[in-house]
Amino acid sequence: MLIVKKFGGSSVANKERIFNVAERCIEEYKKGNKVVVVLSAMGDTTDDLLAKAAEINEDAPKREMDMLLATGEQVSVSLMAMAMAKLGVPAVSLNAFQVPMHTSSKYMNARFKKIDGERITAELEQGKIVIVTGFQGVNKYDDVTTLGRGGSDTTAVALAAALNADACEIYTDVEGVYTADPRVVPNARKMKEVSYDEMLELATLGAKVLHNRSVEMAKKYNVPLVVRSSLTKAEGTVVKEVTKVESMLVSGVAVDKDAARIAIVGLKNQPGIAFKVFDLLAKHNINVDVILQSIGRDDTKDISFTVDQTQAKECVQLLKDNQERLTIQNIKEEENVAKLSIVGAGMQSNAGVAAKMFEALYDVGVNIRMIATSEIRITVLIDLDDVKVAMKAVHDKFLDE
Amino acid sequence: MLIVKKFGGSSVANKERIFNVAERCIEEYKKGNKVVVVLSAMGDTTDDLLAKAAEINEDAPKREMDMLLATGEQVSVSLMAMAMAKLGVPAVSLNAFQVPMHTSSKYMNARFKKIDGERITAELEQGKIVIVTGFQGVNKYDDVTTLGRGGSDTTAVALAAALNADACEIYTDVEGVYTADPRVVPNARKMKEVSYDEMLELATLGAKVLHNRSVEMAKKYNVPLVVRSSLTKAEGTVVKEVTKVESMLVSGVAVDKDAARIAIVGLKNQPGIAFKVFDLLAKHNINVDVILQSIGRDDTKDISFTVDQTQAKECVQLLKDNQERLTIQNIKEEENVAKLSIVGAGMQSNAGVAAKMFEALYDVGVNIRMIATSEIRITVLIDLDDVKVAMKAVHDKFLDE
Repeated sequence: MLIVKKFGGSSVANKERIFNVAERCIEEYKKGNKVVVVLSAMGDTTDDLLAKAAEINEDAPKREMDMLLATGEQVSVSLMAMAMAKLGVPAVSLNAFQVPMHTSSKYMNARFKKIDGERITAELEQGKIVIVTGFQGVNKYDDVTTLGRGGSDTTAVALAAALNADACEIYTDVEGVYTADPRVVPNARKMKEVSYDEMLELATLGAKVLHNRSVEMAKKYNVPLVVRSSLTKAEGTVVKEVTKVESMLVSGVAVDKDAARIAIVGLKNQPGIAFKVFDLLAKHNINVDVILQSIGRDDTKDISFTVDQTQAKECVQLLKDNQERLTIQNIKEEENVAKLSIVGAGMQSNAGVAAKMFEALYDVGVNIRMIATSEIRITVLIDLDDVKVAMKAVHDKFLDE
Repeated sequence: MLIVKKFGGSSVANKERIFNVAERCIEEYKKGNKVVVVLSAMGDTTDDLLAKAAEINEDAPKREMDMLLATGEQVSVSLMAMAMAKLGVPAVSLNAFQVPMHTSSKYMNARFKKIDGERITAELEQGKIVIVTGFQGVNKYDDVTTLGRGGSDTTAVALAAALNADACEIYTDVEGVYTADPRVVPNARKMKEVSYDEMLELATLGAKVLHNRSVEMAKKYNVPLVVRSSLTKAEGTVVKEVTKVESMLVSGVAVDKDAARIAIVGLKNQPGIAFKVFDLLAKHNINVDVILQSIGRDDTKDISFTVDQTQAKECVQLLKDNQERLTIQNIKEEENVAKLSIVGAGMQSNAGVAAKMFEALYDVGVNIRMIATSEIRITVLIDLDDVKVAMKAVHDKFLDE
C-alpha cells in the first residue's frame, strides 16, 4: 500500500510532536507500506514570517512573500527527516523544486498543474519514507509559489492522485468530521463516512476540517480521503464518492461566522442591472455567496448578498465607486451575521427538509434573514448571537438519535 | 559596471540593518551600475537552526542539515527584496536552485562546480537588483548543499567570476584588512592594498576578515576583491594580484588561537615512519599545520605538529589506536598555544626577516615553541598567555611607522 499522510502545523509544533508524528509514520512503514508524508510549517512559523514581512513592507511583492513563506515547510520536513533518522528509519525530505510540483504562476494563490512522481517513487523504491513540503510549488519561471489557505491539504491530495496512492490521510486536531461543531453541540456525532459532495458543502460552509480545494481535487481524481486525529488512534471519517446506501437525510450542520451581508438598495428595475453588479465583483475576485433579490419601493430592486468578511470593505468601496453607473441608492454592510447550513445527500429525494429546518429555528425564536439552497444543502443567514441556539436546535431536529 | 556586494549575517540582523544595506545597494544602482547582492542568514539564524536540529538528532544526516540551514539565507534575500521594493526599486531574490549554482555533492562542505549566469543576467537586464542566497548550492541530485564556513564570501566571489563582474565587495564589521588585530595592537593600520597570496596567508592564519576559500577563488579567477565596512563609508582594503611596486617587507601580523599542539615521542628512527603518521591523519581529514621533527633519546624521533583544536581529540584518539604500529612511546596534547605569523610578499627577497621577528620576541621574553615558514610567511608557536605582548612587539618591530 502507498499511503500519503498529511500533518498540520500544530502536529509538528515542537520536538515531542515531531517525534510523535515520526513514530506514527514509522509504524505504518514497518507494516510494509510505502509512506509519503506532507507537512505544514511548524506551529506559528507562517504567522511569524508574515509578521517579519509586514515589518519590512506591508505591501510586499507576492513573489517575495512566497519565497519567504516557503522556508517554513522546508524547516519542518528537514527536521522530520532528522527525527526519523534518529529512530533508525531512512527518510528523505523534498521541497517543491525537488519533487517537482509545478503550479500556475499566481503567487500566494497558485494551483497545481503537474506533479512529477519520479523522484518520490525512486526514493520509496529505495525503502525511504519521503517527506514533502506542503503548501508550495514552483512555477514556469522556476519561482516559488504558495497555494493559499489549506494548501497543505491540497498538496497531500494532489500527491496521492499523482502517485495513485491507496489512501490519503489528513491528520488534524479533531477525530474526524462531525455532524456539528462538538464545542457548540455536545451531542454531535463523528461521521463514519461522508461523500465528496457533502464534504465539499461542509468545507465551503465553514466546517474547517478540510479545505474545499482539497476535497474538490479528491473528488476529481477519486482519491480516498480519511480525516483523523494526530493525537489519538480513533478511526476518523472516510470521504469518498458513494456513501452508505440508505444515505442520511442530513449528514451535518455547519456554521460560517466569517460572512458579511451587503445590501444594495433602490436599483433601477431594468434588465442587466444584477449582471452588472456581480460581473463587477467577479472581475475583482470577490466571492459572492448567498444572493437575494427583492422588489423595493417605487419599482426599484433591492439586492442582498454575503461575502467573506475579509472582502467586505473592498466590496463596499467598489460598489461606492460605481454607485452611479449601477443606479444604487444606498449601500449597507452588516458583519454580525452567520451562515447556518445543513448538508446531506439524502435531501435530493426528500421533500420537506427545508420546512423542517425552518420549523426548528422557529421553535427557538431564531429569525431567518436570507435563504439559499443547493441540491444537497440548505443555508440560512441568521444573527451571529443566535448561532449556538440555532445550531443545537437544527442538529437535534435532524441528527439526535 | 557590474558589482557584486556581499553582506554577512550581522549586517542584516534586523529591520534597520536590512534597510541600511538596501539603501547602500540602491545608491550604487542609481549611479547606473548593475548590482548583485549576496546575503548570509540574519544574525543568529544559522545557530538557532543548528540548535533546533541538535535537539532532534545530534548526529543528523548532513543532507537534511543542508536542507534545514539553506532556509536561513532564503529568508534574508526575500526580506531584502521586500525592503528594496518598499524603497521603490525593483528587486528579485534568487536561491541556489533558481540561479542555479551547481556544487559538488558533499553536504555541509560542498564546492562550486558551475554557476549559470543566465537568469541573473536576464533579471539585471530588466533593471532589477538581484539578491542571491549565499552559502548554498544544489548538487547533481537536485539536493541542497551548503559550503561550510565562510561560504557566503565564496558565493560572492564565484558569482563575480561567473558574471565577469567589475568588482566584488565584501562588507564586514571592520573597515578593511589591518596590519594586526586593532583590538590587541592599538597602532595597527588598515592596509590599502594586499595581494591575493598575502591575504590567503592572513586568512589561513586566523585573520577572520575573509575566508581563505574565497581568496583562493578570487586569485584563481582574478576577481578584484574589496573588503570594507557595512557601517561606515571608509574605503576598505583592495585585494588583488599585484600590489604596489615597493612591496612592504611585512604587510600584516595574524594570530590563530584555535591551534592545539600534539607531540608524539620516541618513534623508531626508521624510514617511512613520518609518512605513516601523516598519511593516517590525512586519510581521516585531519589538517596538520606546523610540523617539527627532532631527534629524541636513544636514537628515536620526536614529532610535534599543530592541528585545529576542534580536531585535537580525534587526532589523539587516532594516534592511540595506532600507537603500536606507529612505534609511538608517548602522546602529548597541549591546547594553551597560539600561532603568531607575519605575512608579506616582500619577505621573499629579504634575508633576516625571521631573525628580526625572533629578536622582537626575545626582547619581550616570549618563548618560541615551534617555527614554520613559507615564502611569504613566518609562523611561530607560542604560549597562549604571550599572545598580546608578542603581537604588539612584532607589529611594532615591522609595522610601526
